[in-house]
Amino acid sequence: MIFLFTDFGVEGPYVGQVKAALWQTAPQSPVFDLFADAPDRRPREAAYLLAAYAESLPPDSHILGVVDPGVGGERPPVALRLDGRWYVGPGNGLFEIALRRARHIEAYVIDWRPARLSSSFHGRDLFAPILGRLASGQTAEQAGLRDAPVPRFADWPDDLPAVIYLDRYGNLMTGLRDATINRNTILRLAGRKIVWARTFSEVPAGEAFWYGNANGLVEIAVNGGSAAQIFAAELGVIVEII
Amino acid sequence: MIFLFTDFGVEGPYVGQVKAALWQTAPQSPVFDLFADAPDRRPREAAYLLAAYAESLPPDSHILGVVDPGVGGERPPVALRLDGRWYVGPGNGLFEIALRRARHIEAYVIDWRPARLSSSFHGRDLFAPILGRLASGQTAEQAGLRDAPVPRFADWPDDLPAVIYLDRYGNLMTGLRDATINRNTILRLAGRKIVWARTFSEVPAGEAFWYGNANGLVEIAVNGGSAAQIFAAELGVIVEII
Amino acid sequence: MIFLFTDFGVEGPYVGQVKAALWQTAPQSPVFDLFADAPDRRPREAAYLLAAYAESLPPDSHILGVVDPGVGGERPPVALRLDGRWYVGPGNGLFEIALRRARHIEAYVIDWRPARLSSSFHGRDLFAPILGRLASGQTAEQAGLRDAPVPRFADWPDDLPAVIYLDRYGNLMTGLRDATINRNTILRLAGRKIVWARTFSEVPAGEAFWYGNANGLVEIAVNGGSAAQIFAAELGVIVEII
Repeated sequence: MIFLFTDFGVEGPYVGQVKAALWQTAPQSPVFDLFADAPDRRPREAAYLLAAYAESLPPDSHILGVVDPGVGGERPPVALRLDGRWYVGPGNGLFEIALRRARHIEAYVIDWRPARLSSSFHGRDLFAPILGRLASGQTAEQAGLRDAPVPRFADWPDDLPAVIYLDRYGNLMTGLRDATINRNTILRLAGRKIVWARTFSEVPAGEAFWYGNANGLVEIAVNGGSAAQIFAAELGVIVEII
Repeated sequence: MIFLFTDFGVEGPYVGQVKAALWQTAPQSPVFDLFADAPDRRPREAAYLLAAYAESLPPDSHILGVVDPGVGGERPPVALRLDGRWYVGPGNGLFEIALRRARHIEAYVIDWRPARLSSSFHGRDLFAPILGRLASGQTAEQAGLRDAPVPRFADWPDDLPAVIYLDRYGNLMTGLRDATINRNTILRLAGRKIVWARTFSEVPAGEAFWYGNANGLVEIAVNGGSAAQIFAAELGVIVEII
Repeated sequence: MIFLFTDFGVEGPYVGQVKAALWQTAPQSPVFDLFADAPDRRPREAAYLLAAYAESLPPDSHILGVVDPGVGGERPPVALRLDGRWYVGPGNGLFEIALRRARHIEAYVIDWRPARLSSSFHGRDLFAPILGRLASGQTAEQAGLRDAPVPRFADWPDDLPAVIYLDRYGNLMTGLRDATINRNTILRLAGRKIVWARTFSEVPAGEAFWYGNANGLVEIAVNGGSAAQIFAAELGVIVEII
């Protein structure tokens, strides 16, 4: 199973072209959209989102991760095998948090280059063919990977007390893991205190609360309303733990 | 064939995770997006939209319907077989209109629970596995369904004279069926009268009209313009029949 | 491989219904989204976008192209085979630029009509079944095509010096082909001059530049910012070549 985690957006020609490229190298592998609207050109916030969502994927999943503001520049293209799952994408920190939480790690730099490599769309031209080769059973060596360390981002925290995703309902996902804080914890956002509840139906309409979402992240929501609106929240805004 | 009818939004991780869960139980069944932007947390409006669109689906379709503001609360998870088509989702009225229009009805409550059931994402954890089992040939009993009545919403009208969906072009779908009103009918929205036309190309540019859309709903449109903009229309606004 | 190029939007029931219709006639053909948000009801701008993106598709691709403001009116439904690739959709100029650039051309008008043809959704009812038949190996004749000239739009330029697409990052695609202008060319948009750079990482943050995008179009971008915002650009705005 192949999963796509990108900031390409659901509109436009990007996701479709990547899927076509994957199909051309791995026609047997089903492809699923995990996120097409990961934090726009922000690999740091995206790293916490990806780590949380990848954790529940099947252990032999193949993940294409592309949040790549430095495309065409210095950052190396990388491939990682973390606890069985493959991650392919830019070596800009996007996989840092997943890497840090993994027990079994293989790290590679991608040496292979396609005949035609655009300067701005490595997702289609470089990462998709590599991931497709791995998904279709090629070894790291056959796929053109070289055993090598990847760039690390040691100063990033283990959990990020900030909004890392806003969904259609106006729910605010944070980079905090539910399992790391207890339910008596009070959060503060935009000067307001927020307490825990198990889920929407346990809170009066219009009231804000935090809960552990279905992928283990602390999420701030409003029953029947939009937390994004009520807190005028934006990507990256700090969430304080009191 | 599996069809998804949800208010999850096209963005975010929801639809993709549901598709992955379906594939894990029913890998042979193709999955299609019917609506990912059904009326946001409004099962009543969504019920009229779903009934209209499900009617033209193949008779052995499997439909995952999730518009579920009460997730984690009291509403039972249900499965219905209506004129051959399976519907799986929350028992909150989302299937009321399809149910009311069906000739052959089987109604079930879902007794099965997964090993790990999140409090907020039953679409992925509960409804998708059940629908997948049914799509892969399991009987109701094998899938963990119990023959039982589902909640009914008898006070809802048979047709809803209101805007139930706004599309990209600014067209306004109503909960009225084209077949139930005649073409001399005049509609009124935002104080303006609207007459029937067969289609866009029969109306001067910039003019509003109503017509029977490709799925049998009365739809208000503007040739070359946006009815949503011109009428400042929102989801749920009343459309009068004069 | 089937590719969809439409202005249906990623939301709503349109793309999903088209995919279901394709699957019913060509279940073996994988379907990919090229654009679901092509220029809204503007076949002229869309023609330049489609020509550029179709060029890199495999030579046996089947392309459903629907940007069709005149649906239900006079424009004929057409099918074209251009350098091996099939294009099916409205004869309103959407395929004009691809046609003009092709070496091997077969042109057809679609005579076949389905048992039930809606007045507003020919993408689902007419074009998808035809494309599906061709993709599943039927000949033009078997599919219900008649060898006939299609409407031409001789007064459209070969390249369009205008914004034809705005993407999620705020990048502005133009209807100019990178290969037709040299890198010393200066563009002017909203009174400001824009010079060439190879890619994002070669430009200071916040600075605008133009480059040849991954599909051969001249694209205006801002490193780490949004050209759409900075230039207050809209679909169709003229880009001057100085």
